[in-house]
Parts: sequence; structure tokens; C-alpha cells
Amino acid sequence: MDVAFRTSLRLKTAVRSPVSSCRLWSPRVWSSRVWSTGVWSPGVWSPRVWSPRVRSPCRRLHGGPPPRRPFSRLSSEDLAFFRETLPGGTVTDPDLLEASNVDWLKSVRGHSELMLRPQTTAQVSDILRYCHGRSLAVSPQGGNTGLVGGGVPVYDEIILSTALMDQVLGFDQVSGILTCQAGCVLESLSRYLEDRDFIMPLDLGSKGSCHVGGNVATNAGGLRLLRYGSLRGTVLGLEVVLADGRVLDCLATLRKDNTGYDLKQLFIGSEGTLGVITAVSVLCPRKPSAVNVAFLGCETFDQLLGTFRLSKRMLGEILSAFEFLDAACMGLLNTHLKLPNPISDCPFYVLVETSGSDAAHDEEKLHRFLEEAMTSSLVTDGTVATEDAKVKALWSLRERVTEALTHDGFTYKYDVSLPVERIYQLVTAMRTHLGGRARSVVGYGHVGDGNLHLNVTSPARDPALLAAIEPFVYEWTAGCRGSVSAEHGLGLKKRNFIYYSKPRAAVGLMGDIKTLLDPKGILNPYKTLPDDLL
Amino acid sequence: MDVAFRTSLRLKTAVRSPVSSCRLWSPRVWSSRVWSTGVWSPGVWSPRVWSPRVRSPCRRLHGGPPPRRPFSRLSSEDLAFFRETLPGGTVTDPDLLEASNVDWLKSVRGHSELMLRPQTTAQVSDILRYCHGRSLAVSPQGGNTGLVGGGVPVYDEIILSTALMDQVLGFDQVSGILTCQAGCVLESLSRYLEDRDFIMPLDLGSKGSCHVGGNVATNAGGLRLLRYGSLRGTVLGLEVVLADGRVLDCLATLRKDNTGYDLKQLFIGSEGTLGVITAVSVLCPRKPSAVNVAFLGCETFDQLLGTFRLSKRMLGEILSAFEFLDAACMGLLNTHLKLPNPISDCPFYVLVETSGSDAAHDEEKLHRFLEEAMTSSLVTDGTVATEDAKVKALWSLRERVTEALTHDGFTYKYDVSLPVERIYQLVTAMRTHLGGRARSVVGYGHVGDGNLHLNVTSPARDPALLAAIEPFVYEWTAGCRGSVSAEHGLGLKKRNFIYYSKPRAAVGLMGDIKTLLDPKGILNPYKTLPDDLL
Repeated sequence: MDVAFRTSLRLKTAVRSPVSSCRLWSPRVWSSRVWSTGVWSPGVWSPRVWSPRVRSPCRRLHGGPPPRRPFSRLSSEDLAFFRETLPGGTVTDPDLLEASNVDWLKSVRGHSELMLRPQTTAQVSDILRYCHGRSLAVSPQGGNTGLVGGGVPVYDEIILSTALMDQVLGFDQVSGILTCQAGCVLESLSRYLEDRDFIMPLDLGSKGSCHVGGNVATNAGGLRLLRYGSLRGTVLGLEVVLADGRVLDCLATLRKDNTGYDLKQLFIGSEGTLGVITAVSVLCPRKPSAVNVAFLGCETFDQLLGTFRLSKRMLGEILSAFEFLDAACMGLLNTHLKLPNPISDCPFYVLVETSGSDAAHDEEKLHRFLEEAMTSSLVTDGTVATEDAKVKALWSLRERVTEALTHDGFTYKYDVSLPVERIYQLVTAMRTHLGGRARSVVGYGHVGDGNLHLNVTSPARDPALLAAIEPFVYEWTAGCRGSVSAEHGLGLKKRNFIYYSKPRAAVGLMGDIKTLLDPKGILNPYKTLPDDLL
Repeated sequence: MDVAFRTSLRLKTAVRSPVSSCRLWSPRVWSSRVWSTGVWSPGVWSPRVWSPRVRSPCRRLHGGPPPRRPFSRLSSEDLAFFRETLPGGTVTDPDLLEASNVDWLKSVRGHSELMLRPQTTAQVSDILRYCHGRSLAVSPQGGNTGLVGGGVPVYDEIILSTALMDQVLGFDQVSGILTCQAGCVLESLSRYLEDRDFIMPLDLGSKGSCHVGGNVATNAGGLRLLRYGSLRGTVLGLEVVLADGRVLDCLATLRKDNTGYDLKQLFIGSEGTLGVITAVSVLCPRKPSAVNVAFLGCETFDQLLGTFRLSKRMLGEILSAFEFLDAACMGLLNTHLKLPNPISDCPFYVLVETSGSDAAHDEEKLHRFLEEAMTSSLVTDGTVATEDAKVKALWSLRERVTEALTHDGFTYKYDVSLPVERIYQLVTAMRTHLGGRARSVVGYGHVGDGNLHLNVTSPARDPALLAAIEPFVYEWTAGCRGSVSAEHGLGLKKRNFIYYSKPRAAVGLMGDIKTLLDPKGILNPYKTLPDDLL
């Protein structure tokens, strides 16, 4: 069964404008926004022209990328090889390259002069075998929706795009196992599955653009993890091309397989640094026949936690999401996106979703839960939706916080895992710590997963503010044995903060594995692993 | 919170007798039963005495273990070191060692002359650092309940038992995350959690003996995988001691953590060949407040599959198990264990379990499902249980098939994953293929996971019968892109069959990882990886 998808531009048009047509971003504005979590600025913005010579960043300071490693420079012979190997699949036009050289937060940019768009695994293999032989660095790219600068080149790495690898390879209606190429857009897969009465086990705000291969490469979490678990459990097989072009076929479609080490796990969450994922098989749940969403207000975070515990007890197996945002987030939604608050003003808001197979049963459970939550004063106000449009409207309050933040100024973004009881303490601690120095300090995220998105905004890039936030935020997180990157990964921006969450012995072993699989270090260099390792 | 567990002997007493007290097993009988899937016999059975010299197997044929590798022999100085390091934790008495030298199927045996029983991770580290320096081979052992000879020594490897590492280290009531030492017995953990209104995400027939560290090291599947997914998703953290004694602390208690490569996945399912798991953190589901079990009969396997599809649709989120056994299994339960069939005779039986948070809702869903299954003639007879004792009695029909088989003669055991539509075709194909040569050819297993347990019995070990079964069973499985070991692992017995399920490139990479983590190969040698690799 072969089905071609066209990349959806929903997110691109709704949330971000293509960089090449972004008139608002002058070089001055640009340089003030680049490199949101460091203090490195890449210097002036200038038009790119094809040339085997590649710019280096003008200056490097703490937090910026390490020096360019001694990879080969792209030659005209290289280009001739790629044009022959990939007819119609090489992009060298600087305008076309621009959107792939810059991440969607517009916080980091590279200077690649070549993007390759293979359609088959064999082509990916040919590309990597050649690059390995020539010591040419490669930056794999899916939908370019990452938040840590992991999906764009840092210098002149060749961009290896999965955009044209968008075929569904098969779907088993009995087992619910989908097999597809890595470049399938998540939302397209969701639509494909919904027609067959199934859903993807993950859902993300960037679903309109992100590729499933990128989701797997970054071990994306998202909105359904509470119910369906992580990709480490739901991804059943991967096909991966290694740095030297060898194809590793672990594309099993079995729920159980204990024949040797589970190699695919190495590539899940390794951010393209160990291999390029070319195909994925994933276990998909049946589409729930009933979905309800309640949007509730709580006076304190303790009451919010009480509501969470109550939901786990009373909603049990039908609880599919428990998300939260604080009053500051609601303020940004009102101000910047004109989204009205559907309930009365509260310090905290939660979005509770149920998904089940029997509408009457689910509504009864939800009703009893809400009654108990109101009676016991855990919740002060709320609204419930069962119709699709209203469900989507309530979800957009949670999903569009990221977008609202982009309108609030320069944003310092943090994505941490903490023991669930402590997730909001970090927001409070940060507010106290920063005093009046920030414009906004807001918290939202996935309560059910203990995953806080902490965001700090200011009118413009502010090194003094950054110095006040970091390492405070990482030390605070490490003090709770939390993770400094719950679901966004480390990419370029956070690679050197790995030691806050992983001991040196573990990081050293990661380096050994990188060396084993990619001895020349050509795959997504400068990402994931810290500078002192390589 | 520290709670000590005493190892439960339920399984040991119910299913197997300790070898040292097993009067029925004369040397002649023993040698005829050893090595169930190969044709190697270890020669005569003789009492073991302490000596630095170790016996070699008398002869090796296809399928037997490879020659002993040139590890050091245990010296009196070594023994003195271990006695000093582990006061009271060294076992050299041959009678006490006996039960740990032999697997519970009594199909393979080693000749270790030393078992070490550490209580702490530091002690495990001291042991491995010493063994690494001295090139002494080590066989890690949990509850010794494995089915592929992975948990017992092959020659004179030192047995490193986790039996005294049985402490619960912590439990978070809000998140349901349990942290414990590797030697905790699964059933003890289940009892600990049930008192707190939670359950373990896995359940196995061997729960009374198996250790959670062994469960993780073998990526055990079992009876709850359909509902709660694999250990790759539910295990959140591991503490592992590497071959050279380094302690790798990946004992996170977070649902999400994307800081670098997920090293713990390397050790899940690697059968103790890459490191010794010393502690585990695992995400535990809430205890369902309502459990129902239906035991149903079907006329054909197609009807059984139709019943499965119907259950997924109508029971949805409360379906927690869908197991099957065939009429031949029921015959063995009747004959050898005197367990009566609770319904009328049918060619196929299924056990459907629901687990939910609302008894009335669940019963209504189950009732509607059963009505539809009967009306549409998918099911011909059935019985339902909600009381705990009756639920257990129905489950025992499924769980005790393994035990019944041990009374039916010499058993050739296979554990394969296949596309769910094809799982019973293999049983039928095997019956046709073997004609009258086997005593019984039976099939049972986890329909929901596409996991068939195929067992062939004969009055005694029968090399001609084995030659008829293998490689037929593996070739048939490989022809469906199935797995030759769904959940049992490869251990000693199946290591050379890995190529039926994994390509050479993947197996080669497994070998590279083994060399990286255990360059001297001291950890559980002769297991998991094929002989041609090392």
C-alpha cells in the first residue's frame, strides 16, 4: 500500500512565516534573536552565494558552538556526484536553502550550501557512503521543528532532508502496526490512520510540519505520552543508515522480539548523531470513539496536584491527558492571540482529556470526577467539551502558548522533568530569583509526565538576564535529580548542560558509542554530546 | 523506605523441585534430558568437589556450547579475596551450588565452584573490578527461571547472584514510580505495591521466583504486555555495574529524559552480557478496581481471531489480556494436573481479561462483548469470573500449561513472534510436518502480542525428532519475518539461531557493542551472541 503525502503547511503558515519571506526580520533584529540560550551571535546577516568556501562565525563565546572541525569542504566534484546520484534532489539555491539553514525559533543558523533530498534508503546509503569516504559532515533534517538547534547545520554541513521520503509502506489493520518512510508528516499519518479507525501514539503542537523520523530521532514526547507511553515502547522497528552508508534493517513489525540487543533504541533520541532513520514501524492505538475535554481552574498548585491525583483515581484508564498552564500563560494568550479565557480567572488552569470506547461510560466517569473535584474545592470553575470544534478550541489554549510567547519578546526556553510535586516550585523560585528583571516568567506543560515548560521573556536579548537564569535553572533541576531536557533533546544549544542530568561515566560511554558508530564524526556534528568529549 | 523481602518459593515448590533433592533424576535420565534444543550431552553426572580444575564437556556437537574460552581458573587467592570482600556471601559447598548450576528446566548445567551473593552495588563493583583484572568469567543470576540457559554457568564461571539484593529503595505514591534492588522477587514487589493500590506493569508465571533484575535483563514480556507495554517503556531507570566494575548510574525516576543516548536500553534484554543490573526504577500502574476474566471456547482459529478483533473494538481500554491455548494443552492440563475444563470441549480456548476503574461499566462492556461474540457465533461456550478465587482458577489454566508439559515427556520449546493472523498456522504446519513422530504438538500464548509458545513433546530425547523440528521451525518463522525468540531471549540454547531474525550487519554491530562494554568478554560468556562472532 503506497500512499504519497503532501507536506502540510498548517503549522508553517499558522505559527511561523518562512524565513525567506520574513520581512520583519532585519539583520539587526536577527542578530539580537539568534542563539537564545547562549550569548553567541553569528555576526551580520548577509546573502548566501554558492562557493566552496564557508563562513565561520565571527566570534565565539561561552555557549556558542565549538570551532568547525576539520571536515572536508564541498567541492565541485562532490556536487557533480550528488547531482548524478540524486537527479532533481540537490538544492543549492541560497534562497531555497535559507529556510533549512535556520531553526523555526530563528535562534540558530548554519551556512550549508547544499541540501540533498533523497527518496529512497538506497540513495541515503549512497550519500552517506560518499560523505564518509570524503569526510563531509552531514546534518539530517526532518520538519525542522526542533527547539534546541539540533536539526539545522552549524557550519557548512550538507543538509540531508527526509522531505521526499513520505511513503506509507504498510498498515496492518489487525495489529495496528504502521510502517512508513521517515519523512511522513505526523499530521498526514494521523489523517491516514483516522480513516482506518486508528491514531498515532504521539501528538505534538508541531504535527503539521514535523516528520515521524525526526520524532523518533528526538524521542518526541508530546500530548499523548501519559496514555500511550514513550516512543521507546511504541516504535517497533527502524531502518537506519549508518555513517558509512551501511543499512541497518531493524524494521520489525512485531510487538515482541528478544533476539539480541535492541539496536533501534540507540537511534531513538540520538538526534541524528548515530545514524539516519529512513523508515519506522510503530504500534498505533485504536481511535477512541469518545473524547471529552474539561478545562478547569484551580486556586493553588497544590489543588491542581490534588485534581491530578483525583483524575488518576476516578478516570483511570480513560485519562489521556492532564496538561496545565498558569495565569501568566493565559494572559499571553489573551494579549497576543486574542484567545479568550473560557472560564473565570484563576491562578492555574488544567486541561483534562478522556479517551474511551463508550461515550456514556466516559461521560459518567467524567461527571463524577468533576462533581468530586468541585465538591472538595479542588477546582473553582470549569467547562467541558465533547464536540470536536470545542475540544479543539480548548486544546488550542494549551497548544498555542508557545506561539503566544514568540510575540512577547525574546524568549529563554527550558523544558525540564521534575518530580511532579515540584514542577511549579521552579517557576516560583525563578520569579523570586529574577525579581523584576524579566518581562514574563511562565510555566505550562504536562503534569502527568512531570514535565514543565518554563519560559522567561524580555524585551530583547539580555545577557545579564541570561546569566541570572543559567545555571540557576539547571542547578535547581539537578538538585531534584530532574532532567534538563525532558523532551526537547540537547541539540546544539544544550549539549554542554548534559552533566546536570547525567554522570560523567554515562556521558563518556555515550562518546564511546558515537565513536563506534560514527568514527569520523560526520553525522550531525556539534550536537547532543558536550564539547569536552569529542 | 527500606523493606526487606524474603524470596518466595511458591514457584519452586509448585512447579519444580530443587535439583539437589530431586530423587527421580538419575544420571542416566539426567543426561537424556540435558540440552533440550541441541544434541549435545554433557556426559556423566558426577558429584562436584571444590578444585581449581574444571571439567570440560565430554563432547561437543552442533548446538552445544563453544569450547571454554581462556579465562583464568579460580585460585585459592581469588577465593580468599572474595571471602574478605563478601563476608558470609561466598558459597562453595557443591550441594548448595547445585541448584544454581542447573536451569529450572534441567536442560543445561554448568560446573561453577563459586557463587557470590553481594548485598550492595559497591560489592558488585568490587567483584567485577577484581574479575576483570583477573580475567575471571562471571555468570549473573537472578531467580534462575530462564528457559534458554541464559542464567546458569556453562563451564566454571563464577555465579553472581542477586538473591540478597532485595530491598525496595523507594516508592512515589503520586507518580507510581518504584525503585528497588535487582534481586527483589516479582511477586514480593507485586504484594508490596498492591498494599499501596498499585501493581507491577508485568506479570509472569514464574513470579514467585524470578527477580526484577532478571526480568529487565531478559526484557521479560508476560501477561500484561498487551495493556501496559514492554519494559522498554515502563523501566525508567537502571543502575548497572559494567564489566570492569564501573558503576553506571542511570537510575532516573522520570517519565521523560532526553539528555543524550538512553544507555539503560542497552542493558534491557542483553541477558547480563553487557553489565550487571543492580537496581531498577519502574513506572507502576494503579491497581484496577475491577477485574473480570472470561474463559471462552472457539471452533476455529479464525473465529478466535475474530473474537480478538471484537474484543479490541468493544472492550477497548479495559482489555488487559487476550491469551489462548489449544485443545491439546487442555488435554495435558486434564491428564497431568487434573485441572478440569470449565466449559465444553472446543478446539481453542481464550482467556479474556478486563481491568478497569468502574466495575459496573466494565461488566456492561464485557456483557455486550460476550453477547455479540455468542450471537455472531465467534464463541461457542464460555464462563466469566469476577471473584478473585475464580479469576485465579481460570488464569491457572493458561499459566500452568508449561508445568503440564514437563509431565508429558521431553519437551522441545519454541517461543516465536509472528503476524497475529499466522500464529496458529505454525502449529498446524508443525503437526503436518512431524506426522506421528511427536507425542504432542501444542500451541498456546499471547494472541494480543502475536506471541506463540509452540511445544513438542516426546517420550525421551529424540535427535531424529529434533532434526525434524529444527531448522523447520526457524525457517518457517523467518519466512514470516517473525522472531525466533519473542520473550525468552537467546541465552545459551538459541544464540546461534539469531540470524533467522536479525541481519548480519545488526549482529555484527551487537558484537562491536559487546567488545566496547566488555572487552575481555567475562560477562555471561557463550550467551546471546552467536559463536561465529566472538
